[in-house]
Amino acid sequence: MYREEMVAKKLTIGITAPKGFKAVGIHCGIKKAKNDLALIYSERPATAAGVFTKNKVVAAPVIQCKKSLNTSNTFHAILINSGNANACTGQPGLDNAFIMAQETAQRLNIEPNQVFVSSTGVIGEQLPMDKVVNGIKNITTLIEASDDLSAAQAIMTTDTFPKLFHKTFLINGVEVSIGGIAKGSGMIHPNMATMLAFITTDALIEKSLLQKTLKKVTDLTFNKIVVDGDTSTNDMVLILANGASEIEIFENTNEYKIFEKNLYDVLRKLSIDIVKDGEGATKLVEINVEGALTDEDAEKAARQVALSPLVKTAIHGEDANWGRIIAAVGYSGIDFAPELFEIEINDVPILKKNYEVTLPNQLANQTLKSSEIKINLYLNIGKGKATVWTCDFSEEYVKINGSYRS
Amino acid sequence: MYREEMVAKKLTIGITAPKGFKAVGIHCGIKKAKNDLALIYSERPATAAGVFTKNKVVAAPVIQCKKSLNTSNTFHAILINSGNANACTGQPGLDNAFIMAQETAQRLNIEPNQVFVSSTGVIGEQLPMDKVVNGIKNITTLIEASDDLSAAQAIMTTDTFPKLFHKTFLINGVEVSIGGIAKGSGMIHPNMATMLAFITTDALIEKSLLQKTLKKVTDLTFNKIVVDGDTSTNDMVLILANGASEIEIFENTNEYKIFEKNLYDVLRKLSIDIVKDGEGATKLVEINVEGALTDEDAEKAARQVALSPLVKTAIHGEDANWGRIIAAVGYSGIDFAPELFEIEINDVPILKKNYEVTLPNQLANQTLKSSEIKINLYLNIGKGKATVWTCDFSEEYVKINGSYRS
Repeated sequence: MYREEMVAKKLTIGITAPKGFKAVGIHCGIKKAKNDLALIYSERPATAAGVFTKNKVVAAPVIQCKKSLNTSNTFHAILINSGNANACTGQPGLDNAFIMAQETAQRLNIEPNQVFVSSTGVIGEQLPMDKVVNGIKNITTLIEASDDLSAAQAIMTTDTFPKLFHKTFLINGVEVSIGGIAKGSGMIHPNMATMLAFITTDALIEKSLLQKTLKKVTDLTFNKIVVDGDTSTNDMVLILANGASEIEIFENTNEYKIFEKNLYDVLRKLSIDIVKDGEGATKLVEINVEGALTDEDAEKAARQVALSPLVKTAIHGEDANWGRIIAAVGYSGIDFAPELFEIEINDVPILKKNYEVTLPNQLANQTLKSSEIKINLYLNIGKGKATVWTCDFSEEYVKINGSYRS
Repeated sequence: MYREEMVAKKLTIGITAPKGFKAVGIHCGIKKAKNDLALIYSERPATAAGVFTKNKVVAAPVIQCKKSLNTSNTFHAILINSGNANACTGQPGLDNAFIMAQETAQRLNIEPNQVFVSSTGVIGEQLPMDKVVNGIKNITTLIEASDDLSAAQAIMTTDTFPKLFHKTFLINGVEVSIGGIAKGSGMIHPNMATMLAFITTDALIEKSLLQKTLKKVTDLTFNKIVVDGDTSTNDMVLILANGASEIEIFENTNEYKIFEKNLYDVLRKLSIDIVKDGEGATKLVEINVEGALTDEDAEKAARQVALSPLVKTAIHGEDANWGRIIAAVGYSGIDFAPELFEIEINDVPILKKNYEVTLPNQLANQTLKSSEIKINLYLNIGKGKATVWTCDFSEEYVKINGSYRS
C-alpha cells in the first residue's frame, strides 16, 4: 500500500522544505476527532498566485481568496479547515470566511488580505465559528512547532493518506526548494474539482509571472486528472513564494526552466497521489492519446475514456475489454477512423489496425494485473496528443459515496 | 420486484398485439444456454422507420439496416441476435450481417432488403455463422408458434427481466395496436446507447411520416434516459407498420394525434423499464428541470445531474445531499444563479432560494426511501424545462460491469 511506503520513506516534509515556511495542523472541533485546521506561514512576505474552481457555484473562501489576491501584493499565511466547505452559505458564509482571515491576521500581526482561507467538506452548513476562532487562537501559537504531516492530515476529507512532497534543487549553486500538500479523493476532474493544493517556494518570483507559471503547470498536472467527472465548489491551488533563497526567477531564463520543471514535478507527484487515492481506487491509470487531428481532440478522447464507468469497471475487473475503449472514443465527438485505431496496455499491443486482435482475451487481461496501468491509444490520423491520469472504479467507491454524509 | 409484477400481471404480449405480427425467440448457440435469436415477422408488407446510434463506431448490422431502409419501401421481418454485437468486425462482419438478412429472406420467401438485422453483445468477435445460419433455419420454421416473451428474452444481455408492452386503442371505432420489445441495461444514454427496441403497429402509415414520428417520439423517450453516460455501437429503434387494421394515419389529423400519443406511451414504458433495469439499479429517478433560460439549458442541467456518480451514489445511500446536486448544475456550463436555485424531492421542498435548507438532514433523507424518486429542480431565471430518467448507482453496478466478459 502507498501509505506504508510513504511512512517507510519518511516522506513527511512538504511545504516546510523551502526556507522560511512553517506549517502545522490541529483539531479544532469541526470534525469529531481528526485534525481539521491547518496553517501555513511565512514570516517573510511572499508573493502569491492562485488557480480556482470553474464551477458556477463558488464557495465563500474562494471568493475571499480572489479578493485578497486582487488587493495585496504580499502574503504571509494560508488557513485551511476541513469538515465544512463553507459553500452555499450566503452572506453569513462570506462574513465567516473574512473573519477567518481577520482573526488569523490579528494573531500573526499582519493584514487580513495577506491571509488566504480555504475550506473543504460538506456543502450548505454554516461553519461553527466559535470552534474555528478558538482554533485560530491555538494554531497561531503552535505554528513554531512546525509539522508538515499534521498540516497535510488536517486538510484531508475522505483521503486515505496525506499527500505531501517537495523538491530541492540548485540554481546557480544555491539550494532552492518547492514543496506542497494536497487533498483530493472523489470528485476529481479537470478544472480543479474538489481538490486543494498549497505550494510553497523560497524562490523569489514576481506575482504576475508566478500566476502565469502556476496556471500553466496546473493545466499540465492537476487539470489532467479525472476521477469521476464531478467538479466541486471549493477547489484551489495556491502558491506562496517568499524569496528566502535569495534566488530570483526571471522569465525566459535558464533559471526559469529549472524552476518550472521542478514545480511541474511537485504538482505532478501530488496529482498522481490524488488519483491513487481516488475513492475506492485500486489502480492508477495513465491514458495517452496520440495521432488525433489536434491536441484538443486527443484530450477529448482521453477524457471520455477516463470518464467511462464501463472502461473503469473493466480495468478494475482486469478485463481488457477494448470494445468499451473504442466505443468511448467513438462517442467523444472527435474525428476518428475506427479501422485505424490501435491500443496498447502497458506497452503490449492489444488491438492493431482493421480491428486485428493481437492476443487471446486471457493473455490480454494479464496486462491489467499491475497496479499502474498505461493505456496508449493511437488514432493514426494526425499529430494531436494528450495524457490524462485516472483510476479504476471499484465497489468501494459506491460504498464510500453512498454514506459520506450520514 | 418488477419481474414478479410482470409475470403476475401476465404482461407477456408486446409485438404481436398488432394484427398480423408473429414473433419468437430461440437458442441457437451463440450464448451457452439462454435464448439468443429472435424473429419478428409480418406476412403482410409493412412500411418501416429506424433511429440509429450516433457513435462514430457503427456496428455492421446498423450499416445493413440503413442500406435496407434506403433500398426498399416494404419490409417483412427483423432478425436479432444477442451474445455478439458484430461490431468492429470489418468486412467479414458486414458480410455476415448481409448473410443473416439473406438467409432469413430466403426462408421467408422475401427479399434480403426486406429484412432488418440487429445484434447486441460483445464487441470485436466474429459471429459463429454456422450456428446463426442453422438458427435461422430453425426460427423461420417456428415462427407460427408465436411467443412474444421468448423473443423479448432472446434480445437480453445483462437485462434482469424481459421488456415488452403494448397498447390497443380505438381510431374511428376500429381497434389499432402498437407493441414493442426492448433491451437495455448498462451503457444507456441519450442518442441510442446500447439499447435495442423493436416496435410493431397494425396502423397504415406512410414511410416518411413514420420516420418523422419515430424520430420525434424517440427523442422524447429513449433519448431521455441516462444510465451511465456510455453510448454503444449497435443501438437502434425500428418500427414496422403493416396496416392490418386498415386504419391509415395522415399527418395533422386527430387520428395522428391518437397514434402519436399511444406510440409515446409504449416507448415511454419501455424506456422506463430500461432505466429500472439499469445494471444494479435499485431506484428509478426522474429529474425535472424548470426555469432555465432555454429548454437546451434545462436538458444540459438535468443530464449533468443524472450523470453525476456522486449524486447517483447519494440517492442509492438515501442521503439527500443537495450540495452534490447544486454542484452538478454548477458545472453543467449553463446560465445559473445558485442563490435562486430550489430543489424538491418527491414533492417535498429540500432547498429554497438563498440556500435556505427547509428540513433537517434526517427528514430530508426520508424523501429518498421510496423506489421511485422525482427530483424537481427550479432555476428561477427563465422558462426552459426538461425531464430525464435515470437510476441510482449501486455496488452491484461495479460488480456486474467488472466481470461482464470474463
